[in-house]
Amino acid sequence: MREVAIIGAGMTKFGRSDLSLIEIMSEAAIRALEDAALGDQKVDSVYVANMGAARLNRQTAIASALVDQLNLFPAMAEAVENGPASGASAFKNGFQAIASGMADVVLVTGGERMREVNNLEATDFVASMSHPQAEYIYGVTLPALAGMFTRLYMDRYGVTAKHLALVAIKNHANALKNPYAHIHQAITIEGILTAPEAVVNNPYIADPLRLYDCCPVSDGAAALVLTTREIAEKLGKPIVKVGGIGQATDTHAVHERPDPTELTAVKIAAQKAFQMAGIGPQDIDVAELHDAFTILEIAESEEAGFFPKGEGHNALEQGVTSLGGKLPINPSGGLKAKGHPVGATGVAQLVELTWQLRGAAGDRQVEGAKNAFACNFGGFGNNVVTTVLMREE
Amino acid sequence: MREVAIIGAGMTKFGRSDLSLIEIMSEAAIRALEDAALGDQKVDSVYVANMGAARLNRQTAIASALVDQLNLFPAMAEAVENGPASGASAFKNGFQAIASGMADVVLVTGGERMREVNNLEATDFVASMSHPQAEYIYGVTLPALAGMFTRLYMDRYGVTAKHLALVAIKNHANALKNPYAHIHQAITIEGILTAPEAVVNNPYIADPLRLYDCCPVSDGAAALVLTTREIAEKLGKPIVKVGGIGQATDTHAVHERPDPTELTAVKIAAQKAFQMAGIGPQDIDVAELHDAFTILEIAESEEAGFFPKGEGHNALEQGVTSLGGKLPINPSGGLKAKGHPVGATGVAQLVELTWQLRGAAGDRQVEGAKNAFACNFGGFGNNVVTTVLMREE
Repeated sequence: MREVAIIGAGMTKFGRSDLSLIEIMSEAAIRALEDAALGDQKVDSVYVANMGAARLNRQTAIASALVDQLNLFPAMAEAVENGPASGASAFKNGFQAIASGMADVVLVTGGERMREVNNLEATDFVASMSHPQAEYIYGVTLPALAGMFTRLYMDRYGVTAKHLALVAIKNHANALKNPYAHIHQAITIEGILTAPEAVVNNPYIADPLRLYDCCPVSDGAAALVLTTREIAEKLGKPIVKVGGIGQATDTHAVHERPDPTELTAVKIAAQKAFQMAGIGPQDIDVAELHDAFTILEIAESEEAGFFPKGEGHNALEQGVTSLGGKLPINPSGGLKAKGHPVGATGVAQLVELTWQLRGAAGDRQVEGAKNAFACNFGGFGNNVVTTVLMREE
Repeated sequence: MREVAIIGAGMTKFGRSDLSLIEIMSEAAIRALEDAALGDQKVDSVYVANMGAARLNRQTAIASALVDQLNLFPAMAEAVENGPASGASAFKNGFQAIASGMADVVLVTGGERMREVNNLEATDFVASMSHPQAEYIYGVTLPALAGMFTRLYMDRYGVTAKHLALVAIKNHANALKNPYAHIHQAITIEGILTAPEAVVNNPYIADPLRLYDCCPVSDGAAALVLTTREIAEKLGKPIVKVGGIGQATDTHAVHERPDPTELTAVKIAAQKAFQMAGIGPQDIDVAELHDAFTILEIAESEEAGFFPKGEGHNALEQGVTSLGGKLPINPSGGLKAKGHPVGATGVAQLVELTWQLRGAAGDRQVEGAKNAFACNFGGFGNNVVTTVLMREE
């Protein structure tokens, strides 16, 4: 298997965009390509991560459209869909294209333009990834699934509303240091939880989850350029090596799992990625986890092996996962505050970690970060892709 | 790069189905898995080829849903979208997963349930793969693009309505020998062209293309199981080797091509696949080409290198491409008569060629077929994937 390195990274500001999906993705791709400074080296293959252009934007064959917009003919191109884990899935396939020898230089671009439709349609669209006969048909939405998961987690492990709020507060604070984040707003325990007006400002969405426990609906795109070690060295780029990739599926319907608080796919995917990288969770300096809902950051931090099961909320409360802590989680602001344009998210996590490993993350830099971990969470944990990136001295 | 072999193939009958998309795909997948007879060997990775489930079937994360239906946890899984070339694109990514060493056994399943929507919606859906600003917004449909392409081809190369009809007649005759084909109907020059009632029975769709020049709208699925040479030999399976895969993109808008009759992406993709396989077009014994419109079979047979440019219609008329001819094209019936459930098509082409190389194609068997070629054509030629399969003695 050939070694693969990331040599270019770029993204758009997440939020509301007036550009088309192809234009958003082009903006991110051009930034990544400029960062890679390929010179005479051509892009062989383009992967697009996207969940719902056929429905949200009434456009298909979007990988061909992106190649056209960027004038990258006759590069190979296709789109990858894996729900909210589309980004890391596309990255995995770009990795495999190089590792197998079918391509030398690959552009991976994730993007979603979700705000083209109204909130009801967007919620229904996201729910279309749930089990069609066992969940969707009964009106289950993703916030509803997350709410039930949270309640069980609270009962089982002693997580409280305050712990959930601490995830949001940390990630909002981190996002203030990230110019690409959707939400730039400092929040406090008082403002979202204890003050009398919190019940109005932070209403319940799916008890016990409140507004500030849920990520926003965002437009945005992110892009990476991958290549072989040889070409990366020839171009004189700092080497951010793809150490390992793990992926695992679980039952499509959440209620079919023996213990719904166990995110088995996260556990298996993380173990596979660590095994491939030859390191363990204790070696990770910075992580981007998929906090579409605040509880997920806590649960994933346990399943990935950073903390024992049921201890993630304590580590959070002790500041272990804050910037300056032993293992900063979501320095970018996470999905919670950076935003969650679904197809872009998995790629954006790796853009942030690439910047972190290069020491180029500005005010949110995790000092001396050498090994990084990302968890991109599809469905309600039915398809998870994890990635380990490693800086080489 | 590790060698990759096809050890399982299966498909549903194409046509109208009362099953859901996931059920259709499961049926094809189970047939391919039964054919592969994996025993203790587990499926590591699942690729789903599909163009429009998000819109046509209001379902996303379909790869996770298929894994669930087939109980293949914790296999990796994602869907690949590349317009009508989604099938061969997914196959390419399955190939890369094994070639890179990330997976040992891969299930590739292509499916589409198009007849869930009415014909107008289906036509608009297919048109959503054209250029959004340069084509789609002006109301261009795929039949319209193909009609203009055909007129130019007729003027330039002497192709006549009779040649187009001969493609349809040949492929309808072949489909009569294929139990999986959507259309089982013998047609004649008189019936669709020269008889007075032909103008009613075979009306113009997009002059000069008539009804029998266009493929039907179909539901259906097809599946393949891939593995390493070592595992294929261990399982004692006949080896159908993936000799080469080529892919190329072209301008998204047809009118931006210097000569719109040149299908440059077909030419480049074919050259790449032949180069990888170490053989040339003269070595091919049987081919499945993407005849969504009759003219495309003729044009692709030239661009792939089987006949000189402008000579494909003459070879057709001389019977070279008929069963029993020197290079049978579309023994399955092609998209024209086998049907065209878009996500399934590229996989179904390779299912047919696998059967041909195993000598298991029944009445439509090409005797002694050793090397086979498929062309899966995306957009109106903006993204093309070609594959060379080789039987080993």
